Amino acid sequence: MSSTYGESLKLSIFGQSHGPAVGMTLDGIPAGLPVDFEKLQDFLNRRAPGQHHWSTPRREEDRPEFLAGIVDGYTCGAPIAAVIHNINTRSGDYDNLKDLPRPGHADFTAQIKYGGFQDSAGGGHFSGRLTAPLCIAGGMCKQWLEEMGILIGARIVSIGDVQDESELNPVEPQLDQIRKDFPVISEEAAEQMCRKIDEVRAAGNSIGGMIECCITGLPAGLGEPMFGGVENRIAQIVYGIPAVKSVEFGAGHLSGSMMGSQCNDAYTIVDGQVRTLTNHAGGILGGITNGMPVIFRVAVKPTPSIVKPQQTVSLENQTVYPLVVQGRHDPCIVPRAVPVVEAAAAIAMYDLLLSNTQTTRRK
Amino acid sequence: MSSTYGESLKLSIFGQSHGPAVGMTLDGIPAGLPVDFEKLQDFLNRRAPGQHHWSTPRREEDRPEFLAGIVDGYTCGAPIAAVIHNINTRSGDYDNLKDLPRPGHADFTAQIKYGGFQDSAGGGHFSGRLTAPLCIAGGMCKQWLEEMGILIGARIVSIGDVQDESELNPVEPQLDQIRKDFPVISEEAAEQMCRKIDEVRAAGNSIGGMIECCITGLPAGLGEPMFGGVENRIAQIVYGIPAVKSVEFGAGHLSGSMMGSQCNDAYTIVDGQVRTLTNHAGGILGGITNGMPVIFRVAVKPTPSIVKPQQTVSLENQTVYPLVVQGRHDPCIVPRAVPVVEAAAAIAMYDLLLSNTQTTRRK
Amino acid sequence: MSSTYGESLKLSIFGQSHGPAVGMTLDGIPAGLPVDFEKLQDFLNRRAPGQHHWSTPRREEDRPEFLAGIVDGYTCGAPIAAVIHNINTRSGDYDNLKDLPRPGHADFTAQIKYGGFQDSAGGGHFSGRLTAPLCIAGGMCKQWLEEMGILIGARIVSIGDVQDESELNPVEPQLDQIRKDFPVISEEAAEQMCRKIDEVRAAGNSIGGMIECCITGLPAGLGEPMFGGVENRIAQIVYGIPAVKSVEFGAGHLSGSMMGSQCNDAYTIVDGQVRTLTNHAGGILGGITNGMPVIFRVAVKPTPSIVKPQQTVSLENQTVYPLVVQGRHDPCIVPRAVPVVEAAAAIAMYDLLLSNTQTTRRK
Amino acid sequence: MSSTYGESLKLSIFGQSHGPAVGMTLDGIPAGLPVDFEKLQDFLNRRAPGQHHWSTPRREEDRPEFLAGIVDGYTCGAPIAAVIHNINTRSGDYDNLKDLPRPGHADFTAQIKYGGFQDSAGGGHFSGRLTAPLCIAGGMCKQWLEEMGILIGARIVSIGDVQDESELNPVEPQLDQIRKDFPVISEEAAEQMCRKIDEVRAAGNSIGGMIECCITGLPAGLGEPMFGGVENRIAQIVYGIPAVKSVEFGAGHLSGSMMGSQCNDAYTIVDGQVRTLTNHAGGILGGITNGMPVIFRVAVKPTPSIVKPQQTVSLENQTVYPLVVQGRHDPCIVPRAVPVVEAAAAIAMYDLLLSNTQTTRRK
Repeated sequence: MSSTYGESLKLSIFGQSHGPAVGMTLDGIPAGLPVDFEKLQDFLNRRAPGQHHWSTPRREEDRPEFLAGIVDGYTCGAPIAAVIHNINTRSGDYDNLKDLPRPGHADFTAQIKYGGFQDSAGGGHFSGRLTAPLCIAGGMCKQWLEEMGILIGARIVSIGDVQDESELNPVEPQLDQIRKDFPVISEEAAEQMCRKIDEVRAAGNSIGGMIECCITGLPAGLGEPMFGGVENRIAQIVYGIPAVKSVEFGAGHLSGSMMGSQCNDAYTIVDGQVRTLTNHAGGILGGITNGMPVIFRVAVKPTPSIVKPQQTVSLENQTVYPLVVQGRHDPCIVPRAVPVVEAAAAIAMYDLLLSNTQTTRRK
Repeated sequence: MSSTYGESLKLSIFGQSHGPAVGMTLDGIPAGLPVDFEKLQDFLNRRAPGQHHWSTPRREEDRPEFLAGIVDGYTCGAPIAAVIHNINTRSGDYDNLKDLPRPGHADFTAQIKYGGFQDSAGGGHFSGRLTAPLCIAGGMCKQWLEEMGILIGARIVSIGDVQDESELNPVEPQLDQIRKDFPVISEEAAEQMCRKIDEVRAAGNSIGGMIECCITGLPAGLGEPMFGGVENRIAQIVYGIPAVKSVEFGAGHLSGSMMGSQCNDAYTIVDGQVRTLTNHAGGILGGITNGMPVIFRVAVKPTPSIVKPQQTVSLENQTVYPLVVQGRHDPCIVPRAVPVVEAAAAIAMYDLLLSNTQTTRRK
Repeated sequence: MSSTYGESLKLSIFGQSHGPAVGMTLDGIPAGLPVDFEKLQDFLNRRAPGQHHWSTPRREEDRPEFLAGIVDGYTCGAPIAAVIHNINTRSGDYDNLKDLPRPGHADFTAQIKYGGFQDSAGGGHFSGRLTAPLCIAGGMCKQWLEEMGILIGARIVSIGDVQDESELNPVEPQLDQIRKDFPVISEEAAEQMCRKIDEVRAAGNSIGGMIECCITGLPAGLGEPMFGGVENRIAQIVYGIPAVKSVEFGAGHLSGSMMGSQCNDAYTIVDGQVRTLTNHAGGILGGITNGMPVIFRVAVKPTPSIVKPQQTVSLENQTVYPLVVQGRHDPCIVPRAVPVVEAAAAIAMYDLLLSNTQTTRRK
Repeated sequence: MSSTYGESLKLSIFGQSHGPAVGMTLDGIPAGLPVDFEKLQDFLNRRAPGQHHWSTPRREEDRPEFLAGIVDGYTCGAPIAAVIHNINTRSGDYDNLKDLPRPGHADFTAQIKYGGFQDSAGGGHFSGRLTAPLCIAGGMCKQWLEEMGILIGARIVSIGDVQDESELNPVEPQLDQIRKDFPVISEEAAEQMCRKIDEVRAAGNSIGGMIECCITGLPAGLGEPMFGGVENRIAQIVYGIPAVKSVEFGAGHLSGSMMGSQCNDAYTIVDGQVRTLTNHAGGILGGITNGMPVIFRVAVKPTPSIVKPQQTVSLENQTVYPLVVQGRHDPCIVPRAVPVVEAAAAIAMYDLLLSNTQTTRRK
């Protein structure tokens, strides 16, 4: 498996943070699907660094170059391949990471697994930069889903203890309520969160957050039993986003403190359609969509790279060592992670649609 | 994918609740591994119904019959196959479920996906009964991991609002602190939880809970980047357990409200080994084990089948309909789900060990 | 991989020759497909031993017991599982095979791979008996393909140097030309081949043969480029049939001695359909069906178990040893392999149909 | 599946003949493996066009650019990605292929499958040019196998009716007997074959051939039963090479005319090692290596693009049409296919070594 995902589509992500390029191949996509490159670029820009004053000042051009699979703006049936060349690499910053692993980072685990051969510059293959090719694949899948009336939108639920007080209606979410400038619903939350991030940065610290993702317009019946359910497949890809430590659906971890009479979503009929009055199931029963919005939440841990001194060890000397991480790092990657979560969801759902084995008969 | 799991091992689960048998095949296991059948039966008994007064009174013999793959108590290298025959089936109870889907159940999604051809008796392939073959596979993997010094133990963290006040130490968990009679640490919690379940049953309701699973003795370096990480693979299989709505690692959803200086696990050296002072990462960095215990939590929603009247719809008449679910159902499946979570974790970890691509060289 | 096959469907074969049962699980099949059990039994009987005077006198009842996945004669969407219990096992015959491997058999390779833990009785998991569950899966797929107008038929091309002089027309094969009593076209060939087998048996020897398989009624456009082509997928499954040593398509190995002007199949229009005048491509160009019959040939080596003395070695003593194989063995498995080749082809094609990614648009 | 191959390693091939680039990603390779780029280039040059006077005069620089996965000449554990930019593309030649498909080519099947959206220039994704990235992956695997003492060599057995009279000894093949200038053993065969190709080209025709590939130094015990055997896996990848129509192992299609006493390879002991006196099995019994050389043969059909007039149809007008293929094409791709077969074998064997489940215990 490793950096490869999918049942019917085969996504392969490659690249290291400071290597020549990051990129992806996406195999198994039908021919004849249009790609709107401008819209894709807009989507990639939502993830790109340097868009906000509080984001890392490194300025990278996330302009994908398509090497294969698209002709005259349409998929041609051959595998799609795209790369983003790395133009702003500074390998010198990272020389001591193989000996002095940063707490919370993959430095140590990479050192053990790869025996010192890993590319440690900028986090190598474990860098958040690898979410850029994920967004290329996801941005295209998102467009193809939109063509089918399936929309995906994510928002920040909280950063640290700052909540977005407004909520999406889980039964009928209005995705256009999510702000374009900062992906929350209430303007006040946007301001408070930005202020929070500024404070944290000033303190040489970092902060985590919670993201909610909604998928609307899905038909009922998508997903396979047991290990091929919607939850399994979304969780598998979403845990591929660095820093994600929790993936929950519908009422999620709160389900554990509910009674059946509370948690069960009663059925009703709306305009001839079977609907539920609540959506604690997050649109999924038995791993299969029930036609309600699919809703999941993801916890993003704080960026591990902080200026504040931390304790690490020298692997060579086997001694404890105080560490101050140099370099320019995001104090909070949660806003940039929002489109990445959407991308992951789009890839999982598009793959599900391609591989779905729904019957076409009725008893 | 559907009811198939694994990279190097291939687990396939089959059966319907009221069909002739449930079972599993497990392919890709090396030859020469011993299977202790008595120990396996003890493990299966932890999941079996009717062990507790508050559990469903249906009495099933979860005695696996091995059809293939084991000779004289050792794996022979051929695929392992085992079945449990269903002896206590009462199909008559379930006739109306295709028209009147139970809220919170897979009745509706199965009806849409399978067009009425699904086996609705007892939940069919969506029944919790399918966790029995999962426990056959997982129980064997657990034994093979133990041979390597890798132990897996799970406990109930909470049922409804009743918490186990005692906790496992995330840095050095003592799995034998978990009680054998009821999988919590504190005796008081055991009593309170059982009382809670009794109350809920008396009220014709059901209740959910939270389970924590610890894996100790793992080497550092296990897991592949991005989509093949420990988190991805555990989440993929654990979401195959019916009723699971949340899977989180280490600090989990609480990571979202932490600062980097809090969340990062500082490194230290203990007895010449690199260890962390805390374990918010749940033993996993960049998808790869760091040698600390792997810890994850799972929310189990309340059993959807409750006696309390609920609102459903008649799919045929397209009208709202009051529903009272008949039959004998567990008011709380959380205690029985504990070994199932262990089984899932064991399968995921054994698969990971088989497919791990750690280097044996050092730069 | 091992004993598991398929992209969209997942076939898992299990069992050892003299274990409790052989069987299969088949996952990923849509709900609502009918299974004609009588027709399936007829198909299995074509493979079963003891049908012909020259076949092994062991008499096994190849009656599958379905444990899951089929309700009231229709697939229910859950994985299908079926077993055939082994009732005529005589383990005593095979005790010395771990030390004295039979030439041409998997005895030696199994001993090395499984370190003596393998089930050597009757060939264990390497026995031709494992083709029985393959035929259960394949027999069902064959029925479902027939419903779509896709027919599969195989015939013996030759046994030793005895050829079936009559041939199927590769452009428009009439599958009903294949005889039911003995799968060749000409009656004379049937007689000569049976006589040949009798001679070989009398001589304590065995003999190989060549089988041709035709698939008609396939739409054009099936198959994926490079490694997912029709040839790749058929070859992958057909090489799972014991004793197959060659898989070739269309003109096959003769292509290597042809000129382009001979080998290329010229296009024409027949009844508004694009057809080719010849079919050297075996219905496949670039891995993808062109709408012509798919035709492939398979060489089946002679049964390795022969009464004639052979030279082997004692693995324990590391000395050369003369071997006389005891037991009742088929002098020629080619006739019984014919339905197995059809089964394999049916599984491969049904899987291809499920996973095909043909566009539905036109430029 | 499509353009993706592998169990433990994941190879993904992308690109179209006249697109910006062809390339590959190779995931799942352990860290710390050296790559000798010069040796790799030598290997790629064996496949590159324009090396021989009789080859296509198109001159392409098959210089791979490595984008990821290799640092300082060693694999770093991250997926390897490499591209070869296409510099000599002439799209104008191919405009009419969507309407007038070339006999023997994938033009027609691509048109049906992709509905006109396919990249038809130069054969698009079906071009032999896609074997260049296959050789990048295979060339590296070949180096890593050599490090383990496993050598792979292929030679031309025949072109048309011209045979290489000299043969490799199937029991102890000397791979250095294969000539470097032209991959046959006898000098006379080299001359005759080149002469044959010249004649064929002069006649505006093309010609096929047969290639034999040997793998020496393999341990016994490699390969999984049934569908994961060495034959299955080699066949699956080798059929990904355009123009291959037959894959056979050991005695191959000749097995079908042999008696058991002829075909069975008698065992003996040589220098304390179990060996066979003959090698009709091609080193494989029950899908598993027996420690003898693995030997397989591949038929390569004649290049379909010939100057000689052929009959095709206009898909638009549904009428028969005489076709003369323009452009410069190889009259015989067999010599250039030799390293491609080696590459495919190397990838399959390296994958097998990574995923092998041999026991380390002995009963």
